[in-house]
Amino acid sequence: MKGLTIIKVGGKIVEEEGSLQQLLTDFSKIDGHKILVHGGGRLASTIAGQLGIESRMVDGRRITDEATLQVVTMVYAGLVNKKIVAGLQALQVNALGLTGADMNLIRAAKRPVLQVDYGFAGDVKEVNTSALSLLLQNGYVPVLSPLTHDKKGLLLNTNADTIAAETAKALSVLFDVTLIYCFEKSGVLLDENDETSVIPLLDRDLYADYKAEGIIHGGMIPKLDNAFLAIDAGVKQVVITKASAIAENKGTVIRGSL
Amino acid sequence: MKGLTIIKVGGKIVEEEGSLQQLLTDFSKIDGHKILVHGGGRLASTIAGQLGIESRMVDGRRITDEATLQVVTMVYAGLVNKKIVAGLQALQVNALGLTGADMNLIRAAKRPVLQVDYGFAGDVKEVNTSALSLLLQNGYVPVLSPLTHDKKGLLLNTNADTIAAETAKALSVLFDVTLIYCFEKSGVLLDENDETSVIPLLDRDLYADYKAEGIIHGGMIPKLDNAFLAIDAGVKQVVITKASAIAENKGTVIRGSL
Repeated sequence: MKGLTIIKVGGKIVEEEGSLQQLLTDFSKIDGHKILVHGGGRLASTIAGQLGIESRMVDGRRITDEATLQVVTMVYAGLVNKKIVAGLQALQVNALGLTGADMNLIRAAKRPVLQVDYGFAGDVKEVNTSALSLLLQNGYVPVLSPLTHDKKGLLLNTNADTIAAETAKALSVLFDVTLIYCFEKSGVLLDENDETSVIPLLDRDLYADYKAEGIIHGGMIPKLDNAFLAIDAGVKQVVITKASAIAENKGTVIRGSL
Repeated sequence: MKGLTIIKVGGKIVEEEGSLQQLLTDFSKIDGHKILVHGGGRLASTIAGQLGIESRMVDGRRITDEATLQVVTMVYAGLVNKKIVAGLQALQVNALGLTGADMNLIRAAKRPVLQVDYGFAGDVKEVNTSALSLLLQNGYVPVLSPLTHDKKGLLLNTNADTIAAETAKALSVLFDVTLIYCFEKSGVLLDENDETSVIPLLDRDLYADYKAEGIIHGGMIPKLDNAFLAIDAGVKQVVITKASAIAENKGTVIRGSL
Protein backbone atom coordinates (compact mmCIF):
# COMPACT_ATOMS: atom_id res chain seq x y z
CA MET A 1 0.00 0.00 0.00
CA LYS A 2 1.07 3.58 -0.59
CA GLY A 3 1.87 5.82 2.32
CA LEU A 4 -0.40 8.64 3.50
CA THR A 5 0.55 11.29 6.06
CA ILE A 6 -2.28 12.98 7.97
CA ILE A 7 -1.20 16.00 9.99
CA LYS A 8 -3.33 17.72 12.59
CA VAL A 9 -2.39 21.24 13.66
CA GLY A 10 -4.12 23.40 16.23
CA GLY A 11 -5.71 26.78 15.79
CA LYS A 12 -2.86 28.69 17.38
CA ILE A 13 -0.32 27.70 14.72
CA VAL A 14 -2.54 28.68 11.79
CA GLU A 15 -3.59 32.01 13.31
CA GLU A 16 -0.13 33.53 13.56
CA GLU A 17 1.35 34.60 10.24
CA GLY A 18 4.91 33.50 11.04
CA SER A 19 4.10 30.03 12.38
CA LEU A 20 1.52 29.49 9.59
CA GLN A 21 4.07 30.21 6.85
CA GLN A 22 6.61 27.91 8.54
CA LEU A 23 4.02 25.16 8.83
CA LEU A 24 2.98 25.46 5.18
CA THR A 25 6.61 25.40 4.01
CA ASP A 26 7.32 22.31 6.14
CA PHE A 27 4.09 20.63 5.01
CA SER A 28 4.95 21.31 1.35
CA LYS A 29 8.17 19.29 1.77
CA ILE A 30 6.42 16.09 2.88
CA ASP A 31 6.52 13.53 0.08
CA GLY A 32 3.62 11.41 -1.09
CA HIS A 33 -0.07 11.56 -0.30
CA LYS A 34 -0.98 13.91 2.53
CA ILE A 35 -3.91 15.54 4.30
CA LEU A 36 -3.84 18.57 6.61
CA VAL A 37 -6.46 18.86 9.37
CA HIS A 38 -6.66 22.20 11.16
CA GLY A 39 -8.35 23.58 14.23
CA GLY A 40 -9.14 27.24 14.61
CA GLY A 41 -10.38 27.83 18.10
CA ARG A 42 -9.09 31.17 19.32
CA LEU A 43 -9.86 33.18 16.20
CA ALA A 44 -13.47 31.98 16.34
CA SER A 45 -13.68 33.29 19.91
CA THR A 46 -12.17 36.64 18.88
CA ILE A 47 -14.60 37.13 15.98
CA ALA A 48 -17.56 35.88 18.04
CA GLY A 49 -16.59 38.49 20.63
CA GLN A 50 -16.48 41.24 17.99
CA LEU A 51 -19.96 40.16 16.85
CA GLY A 52 -21.22 40.24 20.43
CA ILE A 53 -21.57 36.46 20.73
CA GLU A 54 -20.37 34.94 23.99
CA SER A 55 -18.03 31.91 23.74
CA ARG A 56 -18.91 29.21 26.25
CA MET A 57 -16.61 26.23 26.89
CA VAL A 58 -17.17 23.13 29.04
CA ASP A 59 -14.13 20.88 29.66
CA GLY A 60 -12.26 22.59 26.82
CA ARG A 61 -15.07 21.99 24.35
CA ARG A 62 -17.06 24.78 22.77
CA ILE A 63 -20.81 24.99 23.30
CA THR A 64 -22.07 25.59 19.78
CA ASP A 65 -25.36 27.48 19.72
CA GLU A 66 -26.78 28.67 16.41
CA ALA A 67 -24.93 32.00 16.38
CA THR A 68 -21.67 30.25 17.29
CA LEU A 69 -22.19 27.67 14.53
CA GLN A 70 -22.39 30.54 12.03
CA VAL A 71 -19.16 32.01 13.39
CA VAL A 72 -17.21 28.74 13.34
CA THR A 73 -18.48 28.04 9.82
CA MET A 74 -17.20 31.45 8.72
CA VAL A 75 -13.89 31.22 10.54
CA TYR A 76 -12.98 27.54 10.13
CA ALA A 77 -14.34 26.81 6.63
CA GLY A 78 -13.83 30.34 5.30
CA LEU A 79 -11.05 32.43 6.78
CA VAL A 80 -8.66 29.82 8.18
CA ASN A 81 -9.20 27.08 5.60
CA LYS A 82 -8.89 29.30 2.53
CA LYS A 83 -5.83 31.10 3.87
CA ILE A 84 -4.12 27.71 4.23
CA VAL A 85 -5.24 26.61 0.76
CA ALA A 86 -4.04 29.82 -0.94
CA GLY A 87 -0.75 29.58 0.94
CA LEU A 88 -0.20 25.96 -0.11
CA GLN A 89 -1.09 26.75 -3.73
CA ALA A 90 1.68 29.38 -3.71
CA LEU A 91 4.05 26.57 -2.62
CA GLN A 92 2.95 24.34 -5.54
CA VAL A 93 0.85 22.07 -3.32
CA ASN A 94 -2.45 21.41 -5.11
CA ALA A 95 -4.58 21.83 -2.00
CA LEU A 96 -8.34 22.03 -1.67
CA GLY A 97 -10.20 22.94 1.47
CA LEU A 98 -13.16 20.90 2.60
CA THR A 99 -15.58 20.43 5.46
CA GLY A 100 -17.25 17.12 6.23
CA ALA A 101 -20.28 18.31 4.26
CA ASP A 102 -18.29 18.71 1.02
CA MET A 103 -18.46 15.46 -1.02
CA ASN A 104 -20.27 14.05 2.02
CA LEU A 105 -16.77 13.45 3.41
CA ILE A 106 -17.65 13.09 7.08
CA ARG A 107 -21.13 12.32 8.30
CA ALA A 108 -21.78 12.94 11.97
CA ALA A 109 -24.65 12.87 14.44
CA LYS A 110 -25.55 15.83 16.62
CA ARG A 111 -24.17 14.96 20.05
CA PRO A 112 -26.94 13.70 22.34
CA VAL A 113 -27.68 15.87 25.37
CA LEU A 114 -26.50 14.10 28.54
CA GLN A 115 -25.04 16.19 31.37
CA VAL A 116 -24.11 18.96 28.93
CA ASP A 117 -25.90 20.27 25.84
CA TYR A 118 -23.02 20.97 23.43
CA GLY A 119 -25.47 22.31 20.84
CA PHE A 120 -24.43 21.85 17.22
CA ALA A 121 -21.52 19.52 18.00
CA GLY A 122 -21.02 16.42 15.88
CA ASP A 123 -19.88 12.89 16.72
CA VAL A 124 -18.34 11.29 13.63
CA LYS A 125 -20.29 8.36 12.18
CA GLU A 126 -18.75 7.72 8.75
CA VAL A 127 -15.80 8.88 6.66
CA ASN A 128 -16.18 8.74 2.86
CA THR A 129 -12.97 7.01 1.85
CA SER A 130 -13.77 6.85 -1.87
CA ALA A 131 -14.05 10.64 -2.18
CA LEU A 132 -10.78 11.23 -0.30
CA SER A 133 -9.07 8.48 -2.25
CA LEU A 134 -10.19 10.00 -5.59
CA LEU A 135 -8.63 13.32 -4.60
CA LEU A 136 -5.40 11.78 -3.27
CA GLN A 137 -4.93 9.46 -6.27
CA ASN A 138 -5.26 12.47 -8.56
CA GLY A 139 -2.58 14.45 -6.75
CA TYR A 140 -4.80 16.75 -4.68
CA VAL A 141 -4.10 17.56 -1.05
CA PRO A 142 -7.23 17.84 1.13
CA VAL A 143 -7.21 20.48 3.87
CA LEU A 144 -9.95 19.57 6.34
CA SER A 145 -11.64 22.09 8.60
CA PRO A 146 -13.26 20.90 11.84
CA LEU A 147 -16.85 20.81 10.62
CA THR A 148 -19.00 17.83 9.70
CA HIS A 149 -22.65 17.47 8.67
CA ASP A 150 -25.57 15.20 9.46
CA LYS A 151 -26.54 14.68 5.77
CA LYS A 152 -29.87 16.27 6.63
CA GLY A 153 -28.75 19.86 6.07
CA LEU A 154 -27.05 20.63 9.39
CA LEU A 155 -23.39 21.55 9.73
CA LEU A 156 -21.84 20.40 13.01
CA ASN A 157 -18.80 21.64 14.90
CA THR A 158 -16.41 18.73 15.39
CA ASN A 159 -13.12 18.41 17.27
CA ALA A 160 -10.16 18.51 14.86
CA ASP A 161 -8.29 15.72 16.73
CA THR A 162 -11.31 13.48 16.22
CA ILE A 163 -11.55 14.37 12.51
CA ALA A 164 -7.87 13.51 12.06
CA ALA A 165 -8.18 10.21 13.97
CA GLU A 166 -11.37 9.06 12.24
CA THR A 167 -10.02 9.99 8.80
CA ALA A 168 -6.78 8.13 9.55
CA LYS A 169 -8.63 5.03 10.74
CA ALA A 170 -10.97 4.94 7.74
CA LEU A 171 -8.18 5.48 5.19
CA SER A 172 -5.96 2.80 6.77
CA VAL A 173 -7.85 0.26 4.62
CA LEU A 174 -6.41 1.94 1.49
CA PHE A 175 -3.09 3.44 2.66
CA ASP A 176 -0.24 2.93 5.14
CA VAL A 177 -1.26 5.84 7.35
CA THR A 178 1.04 7.93 9.53
CA LEU A 179 -1.02 10.24 11.76
CA ILE A 180 0.91 13.22 13.13
CA TYR A 181 -0.45 15.29 16.02
CA CYS A 182 1.27 18.65 16.43
CA PHE A 183 1.30 20.16 19.89
CA GLU A 184 3.39 22.64 21.85
CA LYS A 185 6.09 20.18 23.00
CA SER A 186 8.70 18.27 20.99
CA GLY A 187 7.08 14.92 21.77
CA VAL A 188 6.24 12.77 24.77
CA LEU A 189 8.90 13.79 27.32
CA LEU A 190 10.65 11.74 30.00
CA ASP A 191 10.98 14.98 31.95
CA GLU A 192 8.22 17.47 31.15
CA ASN A 193 10.60 20.38 31.81
CA ASP A 194 13.27 19.12 29.44
CA GLU A 195 12.48 19.48 25.72
CA THR A 196 15.45 17.25 24.85
CA SER A 197 14.06 14.28 26.80
CA VAL A 198 11.76 13.11 23.99
CA ILE A 199 10.86 9.41 24.09
CA PRO A 200 11.63 8.45 20.47
CA LEU A 201 9.51 5.27 20.28
CA LEU A 202 6.58 4.03 22.31
CA ASP A 203 4.76 0.73 22.07
CA ARG A 204 2.08 -0.71 24.32
CA ASP A 205 4.57 -2.31 26.74
CA LEU A 206 6.75 0.78 27.12
CA TYR A 207 3.62 2.92 27.56
CA ALA A 208 2.39 0.65 30.35
CA ASP A 209 5.79 0.84 32.06
CA TYR A 210 6.02 4.65 31.83
CA LYS A 211 2.46 5.00 33.14
CA ALA A 212 3.21 2.66 36.06
CA GLU A 213 6.31 4.71 36.91
CA GLY A 214 4.32 7.97 36.75
CA ILE A 215 6.56 9.35 33.97
CA ILE A 216 3.59 9.61 31.61
CA HIS A 217 0.62 11.18 33.37
CA GLY A 218 -2.09 13.81 33.18
CA GLY A 219 -3.27 15.12 29.80
CA MET A 220 -0.83 12.92 27.92
CA ILE A 221 -2.75 9.76 28.88
CA PRO A 222 -5.97 10.43 26.87
CA LYS A 223 -3.78 11.57 23.91
CA LEU A 224 -1.82 8.30 23.96
CA ASP A 225 -4.89 6.16 24.62
CA ASN A 226 -6.42 7.68 21.48
CA ALA A 227 -3.18 7.04 19.57
CA PHE A 228 -3.31 3.33 20.49
CA LEU A 229 -7.01 3.19 19.55
CA ALA A 230 -6.05 4.54 16.09
CA ILE A 231 -3.34 1.88 15.83
CA ASP A 232 -5.82 -0.83 16.89
CA ALA A 233 -8.05 0.38 14.05
CA GLY A 234 -5.31 -0.05 11.43
CA VAL A 235 -3.24 3.17 11.48
CA LYS A 236 0.42 2.22 10.96
CA GLN A 237 1.92 4.77 13.35
CA VAL A 238 1.04 7.91 15.27
CA VAL A 239 3.59 10.68 15.79
CA ILE A 240 3.37 13.34 18.51
CA THR A 241 5.61 16.31 17.82
CA LYS A 242 6.03 20.07 17.50
CA ALA A 243 4.61 21.65 14.33
CA SER A 244 8.08 22.96 13.49
CA ALA A 245 9.39 19.36 13.36
CA ILE A 246 6.93 17.74 10.93
CA ALA A 247 9.38 17.77 8.02
CA GLU A 248 12.24 16.38 10.14
CA ASN A 249 10.66 13.15 11.33
CA LYS A 250 11.33 13.98 14.98
CA GLY A 251 9.08 13.56 18.01
CA THR A 252 7.58 10.46 19.58
CA VAL A 253 6.60 7.62 17.24
CA ILE A 254 3.87 5.36 18.61
CA ARG A 255 3.40 1.86 17.20
CA GLY A 256 1.56 -1.24 18.37
CA SER A 257 4.87 -3.04 18.79
CA LEU A 258 8.46 -1.99 18.10
CA MET B 1 -20.41 15.95 -25.87
CA LYS B 2 -22.28 15.65 -22.61
CA GLY B 3 -24.37 18.55 -21.35
CA LEU B 4 -23.35 20.76 -18.43
CA THR B 5 -25.58 23.33 -16.77
CA ILE B 6 -23.91 26.22 -14.95
CA ILE B 7 -26.25 28.31 -12.83
CA LYS B 8 -25.38 31.66 -11.31
CA VAL B 9 -27.51 32.95 -8.46
CA GLY B 10 -27.15 36.22 -6.61
CA GLY B 11 -26.53 36.80 -2.95
CA LYS B 12 -30.11 37.81 -2.18
CA ILE B 13 -31.56 34.40 -3.10
CA VAL B 14 -29.11 32.43 -0.97
CA GLU B 15 -29.43 34.69 2.07
CA GLU B 16 -33.14 34.19 2.63
CA GLU B 17 -34.04 30.79 4.07
CA GLY B 18 -37.22 30.36 2.01
CA SER B 19 -35.77 31.29 -1.38
CA LEU B 20 -32.59 29.32 -0.66
CA GLN B 21 -34.50 26.12 0.06
CA GLN B 22 -36.59 26.58 -3.08
CA LEU B 23 -33.46 27.18 -5.14
CA LEU B 24 -31.74 24.08 -3.77
CA THR B 25 -34.80 21.92 -4.41
CA ASP B 26 -35.08 23.23 -7.98
CA PHE B 27 -31.34 22.81 -8.54
CA SER B 28 -31.47 19.23 -7.25
CA LYS B 29 -33.97 18.37 -10.01
CA ILE B 30 -31.69 19.40 -12.87
CA ASP B 31 -30.38 16.32 -14.67
CA GLY B 32 -26.80 15.70 -15.68
CA HIS B 33 -23.60 17.55 -14.88
CA LYS B 34 -24.11 20.86 -13.11
CA ILE B 35 -22.27 23.65 -11.30
CA LEU B 36 -23.75 26.29 -8.99
CA VAL B 37 -22.05 29.71 -8.76
CA HIS B 38 -23.26 31.98 -5.98
CA GLY B 39 -22.80 35.59 -4.99
CA GLY B 40 -23.22 36.76 -1.43
CA GLY B 41 -23.06 40.52 -1.42
CA ARG B 42 -25.51 41.83 1.14
CA LEU B 43 -24.64 39.44 3.96
CA ALA B 44 -20.97 40.43 3.65
CA SER B 45 -21.99 44.08 4.11
CA THR B 46 -24.13 43.20 7.14
CA ILE B 47 -21.34 41.25 8.84
CA ALA B 48 -18.72 43.83 7.88
CA GLY B 49 -20.97 46.43 9.53
CA GLN B 50 -21.26 44.33 12.70
CA LEU B 51 -17.45 44.08 12.77
CA GLY B 52 -17.13 47.85 12.32
CA ILE B 53 -15.79 47.63 8.76
CA GLU B 54 -17.23 50.10 6.29
CA SER B 55 -18.45 48.69 2.93
CA ARG B 56 -17.45 50.90 0.01
CA MET B 57 -18.87 50.36 -3.49
CA VAL B 58 -17.95 52.05 -6.80
CA ASP B 59 -20.25 51.39 -9.78
CA GLY B 60 -21.84 48.46 -7.94
CA ARG B 61 -18.47 46.83 -7.26
CA ARG B 62 -17.07 46.37 -3.80
CA ILE B 63 -13.78 48.00 -2.85
CA THR B 64 -11.95 45.12 -1.17
CA ASP B 65 -9.43 46.33 1.40
CA GLU B 66 -7.69 43.80 3.65
CA ALA B 67 -10.37 43.78 6.35
CA THR B 68 -13.08 43.42 3.71
CA LEU B 69 -11.21 40.54 2.06
CA GLN B 70 -11.28 38.71 5.39
CA VAL B 71 -15.02 39.30 5.70
CA VAL B 72 -15.88 38.16 2.16
CA THR B 73 -13.66 35.09 2.62
CA MET B 74 -15.59 34.23 5.80
CA VAL B 75 -19.01 34.95 4.38
CA TYR B 76 -18.70 33.70 0.78
CA ALA B 77 -16.40 30.67 1.24
CA GLY B 78 -17.60 29.84 4.76
CA LEU B 79 -21.12 30.78 5.73
CA VAL B 80 -22.91 30.99 2.38
CA ASN B 81 -21.01 28.27 0.52
CA LYS B 82 -21.22 25.63 3.27
CA LYS B 83 -24.88 26.31 3.94
CA ILE B 84 -25.58 25.61 0.25
CA VAL B 85 -23.40 22.47 0.28
CA ALA B 86 -25.04 21.05 3.43
CA GLY B 87 -28.48 21.83 1.99
CA LEU B 88 -27.69 20.09 -1.31
CA GLN B 89 -26.25 17.06 0.49
CA ALA B 90 -29.57 16.70 2.31
CA LEU B 91 -31.23 16.59 -1.15
CA GLN B 92 -28.87 13.79 -2.30
CA VAL B 93 -26.79 16.13 -4.48
CA ASN B 94 -23.12 15.29 -3.91
CA ALA B 95 -22.00 18.91 -3.74
CA LEU B 96 -18.64 20.34 -2.73
CA GLY B 97 -17.91 24.00 -2.19
CA LEU B 98 -14.83 25.58 -3.68
CA THR B 99 -13.13 28.90 -4.21
CA GLY B 100 -10.81 29.57 -7.12
CA ALA B 101 -7.87 28.78 -4.83
CA ASP B 102 -9.07 25.22 -4.16
CA MET B 103 -7.50 22.81 -6.71
CA ASN B 104 -6.13 25.98 -8.33
CA LEU B 105 -9.53 26.19 -10.04
CA ILE B 106 -9.47 29.85 -11.03
CA ARG B 107 -6.31 31.86 -11.23
CA ALA B 108 -6.73 35.63 -11.35
CA ALA B 109 -4.64 38.77 -11.30
CA LYS B 110 -5.17 41.58 -8.83
CA ARG B 111 -6.99 44.27 -10.76
CA PRO B 112 -4.61 47.03 -11.83
CA VAL B 113 -5.24 50.45 -10.32
CA LEU B 114 -6.56 52.83 -12.99
CA GLN B 115 -9.19 55.41 -12.02
CA VAL B 116 -10.29 53.28 -9.06
CA ASP B 117 -8.28 51.08 -6.69
CA TYR B 118 -10.58 48.11 -6.15
CA GLY B 119 -8.10 46.59 -3.70
CA PHE B 120 -8.09 42.79 -3.54
CA ALA B 121 -10.30 42.31 -6.61
CA GLY B 122 -9.38 39.66 -9.15
CA ASP B 123 -9.61 39.56 -12.94
CA VAL B 124 -9.84 35.93 -14.10
CA LYS B 125 -6.85 34.65 -16.07
CA GLU B 126 -7.29 30.87 -16.23
CA VAL B 127 -9.87 28.22 -15.34
CA ASN B 128 -8.59 24.74 -14.49
CA THR B 129 -10.83 22.58 -16.65
CA SER B 130 -9.16 19.28 -15.75
CA ALA B 131 -9.92 19.66 -12.04
CA LEU B 132 -13.57 20.60 -12.67
CA SER B 133 -13.90 17.82 -15.23
CA LEU B 134 -12.53 15.24 -12.74
CA LEU B 135 -15.17 16.25 -10.22
CA LEU B 136 -18.02 16.33 -12.74
CA GLN B 137 -17.09 12.99 -14.34
CA ASN B 138 -17.11 11.40 -10.88
CA GLY B 139 -20.59 12.65 -10.05
CA TYR B 140 -19.68 15.62 -7.85
CA VAL B 141 -21.42 18.98 -8.10
CA PRO B 142 -19.10 21.98 -7.61
CA VAL B 143 -20.54 24.98 -5.77
CA LEU B 144 -18.31 27.97 -6.55
CA SER B 145 -18.01 31.00 -4.30
CA PRO B 146 -16.92 34.33 -5.81
CA LEU B 147 -13.27 34.20 -4.76
CA THR B 148 -10.20 33.47 -6.87
CA HIS B 149 -6.47 33.51 -6.10
CA ASP B 150 -3.28 34.72 -7.73
CA LYS B 151 -1.38 31.43 -7.14
CA LYS B 152 1.05 33.48 -5.05
CA GLY B 153 -0.88 33.19 -1.81
CA LEU B 154 -3.47 35.96 -2.24
CA LEU B 155 -7.20 35.38 -2.32
CA LEU B 156 -9.08 37.83 -4.54
CA ASN B 157 -12.70 38.94 -4.52
CA THR B 158 -14.20 38.24 -7.96
CA ASN B 159 -17.59 39.01 -9.45
CA ALA B 160 -19.81 35.90 -9.49
CA ASP B 161 -21.18 36.68 -13.00
CA THR B 162 -17.61 36.70 -14.28
CA ILE B 163 -16.77 33.42 -12.53
CA ALA B 164 -19.84 31.79 -14.09
CA ALA B 165 -19.04 33.15 -17.57
CA GLU B 166 -15.34 32.25 -17.51
CA THR B 167 -16.06 28.77 -16.14
CA ALA B 168 -18.71 28.24 -18.84
CA LYS B 169 -16.37 29.39 -21.61
CA ALA B 170 -13.47 27.22 -20.44
CA LEU B 171 -15.61 24.10 -19.99
CA SER B 172 -17.28 24.52 -23.40
CA VAL B 173 -14.29 22.63 -24.85
CA LEU B 174 -15.37 19.53 -22.89
CA PHE B 175 -19.15 19.92 -22.52
CA ASP B 176 -22.24 21.35 -24.25
CA VAL B 177 -22.65 24.20 -21.77
CA THR B 178 -25.90 25.93 -20.86
CA LEU B 179 -25.18 29.01 -18.72
CA ILE B 180 -28.15 30.21 -16.67
CA TYR B 181 -28.17 33.67 -15.08
CA CYS B 182 -30.82 34.09 -12.41
CA PHE B 183 -32.09 37.58 -11.78
CA GLU B 184 -35.20 39.23 -10.38
CA LYS B 185 -37.28 39.14 -13.62
CA SER B 186 -38.69 36.19 -15.57
CA GLY B 187 -36.39 36.85 -18.51
CA VAL B 188 -35.70 39.59 -21.05
CA LEU B 189 -39.04 41.37 -21.29
CA LEU B 190 -40.71 43.08 -24.27
CA ASP B 191 -42.39 45.36 -21.74
CA GLU B 192 -40.35 45.78 -18.56
CA ASN B 193 -43.53 46.18 -16.51
CA ASP B 194 -45.12 42.98 -17.78
CA GLU B 195 -43.62 39.76 -16.39
CA THR B 196 -45.56 37.73 -18.98
CA SER B 197 -43.86 39.50 -21.92
CA VAL B 198 -40.72 37.31 -21.83
CA ILE B 199 -38.84 37.07 -25.12
CA PRO B 200 -38.44 33.27 -25.39
CA LEU B 201 -35.52 33.20 -27.84
CA LEU B 202 -32.91 35.77 -28.81
CA ASP B 203 -30.22 35.53 -31.44
CA ARG B 204 -27.85 38.20 -32.67
CA ASP B 205 -30.28 39.51 -35.34
CA LEU B 206 -33.26 39.74 -33.02
CA TYR B 207 -31.08 41.38 -30.36
CA ALA B 208 -29.92 44.02 -32.88
CA ASP B 209 -33.55 44.68 -33.87
CA TYR B 210 -34.80 44.99 -30.28
CA LYS B 211 -31.92 47.32 -29.43
CA ALA B 212 -32.60 49.48 -32.48
CA GLU B 213 -36.27 49.73 -31.48
CA GLY B 214 -35.31 50.67 -27.89
CA ILE B 215 -37.15 47.62 -26.49
CA ILE B 216 -33.93 46.28 -24.98
CA HIS B 217 -32.02 49.05 -23.22
CA GLY B 218 -30.23 50.08 -20.04
CA GLY B 219 -28.70 47.45 -17.76
CA MET B 220 -29.91 44.60 -19.97
CA ILE B 221 -27.43 45.57 -22.72
CA PRO B 222 -24.18 44.70 -20.88
CA LYS B 223 -25.84 41.46 -19.64
CA LEU B 224 -26.73 40.44 -23.19
CA ASP B 225 -23.41 41.60 -24.65
CA ASN B 226 -21.70 39.30 -22.11
CA ALA B 227 -24.07 36.48 -23.04
CA PHE B 228 -23.11 36.78 -26.72
CA LEU B 229 -19.41 36.94 -25.76
CA ALA B 230 -19.88 33.62 -23.93
CA ILE B 231 -21.57 32.16 -27.00
CA ASP B 232 -18.74 33.45 -29.23
CA ALA B 233 -16.35 31.59 -26.90
CA GLY B 234 -18.17 28.28 -27.35
CA VAL B 235 -21.02 28.24 -24.80
CA LYS B 236 -24.02 26.54 -26.43
CA GLN B 237 -26.70 28.77 -24.93
CA VAL B 238 -27.24 31.35 -22.21
CA VAL B 239 -30.53 31.55 -20.33
CA ILE B 240 -31.72 34.59 -18.39
CA THR B 241 -34.50 33.78 -15.97
CA LYS B 242 -35.90 33.95 -12.42
CA ALA B 243 -34.30 31.63 -9.88
CA SER B 244 -37.69 30.04 -9.26
CA ALA B 245 -37.85 28.94 -12.93
CA ILE B 246 -34.53 27.11 -13.32
CA ALA B 247 -36.13 23.67 -13.17
CA GLU B 248 -38.88 24.61 -15.65
CA ASN B 249 -36.75 25.67 -18.61
CA LYS B 250 -38.46 29.06 -18.84
CA GLY B 251 -36.96 32.51 -19.39
CA THR B 252 -35.05 33.92 -22.35
CA VAL B 253 -32.79 31.55 -24.25
CA ILE B 254 -29.92 33.26 -26.05
CA ARG B 255 -28.15 31.50 -28.92
CA GLY B 256 -25.82 32.61 -31.68
CA SER B 257 -28.47 31.78 -34.26
CA LEU B 258 -31.95 30.26 -33.94
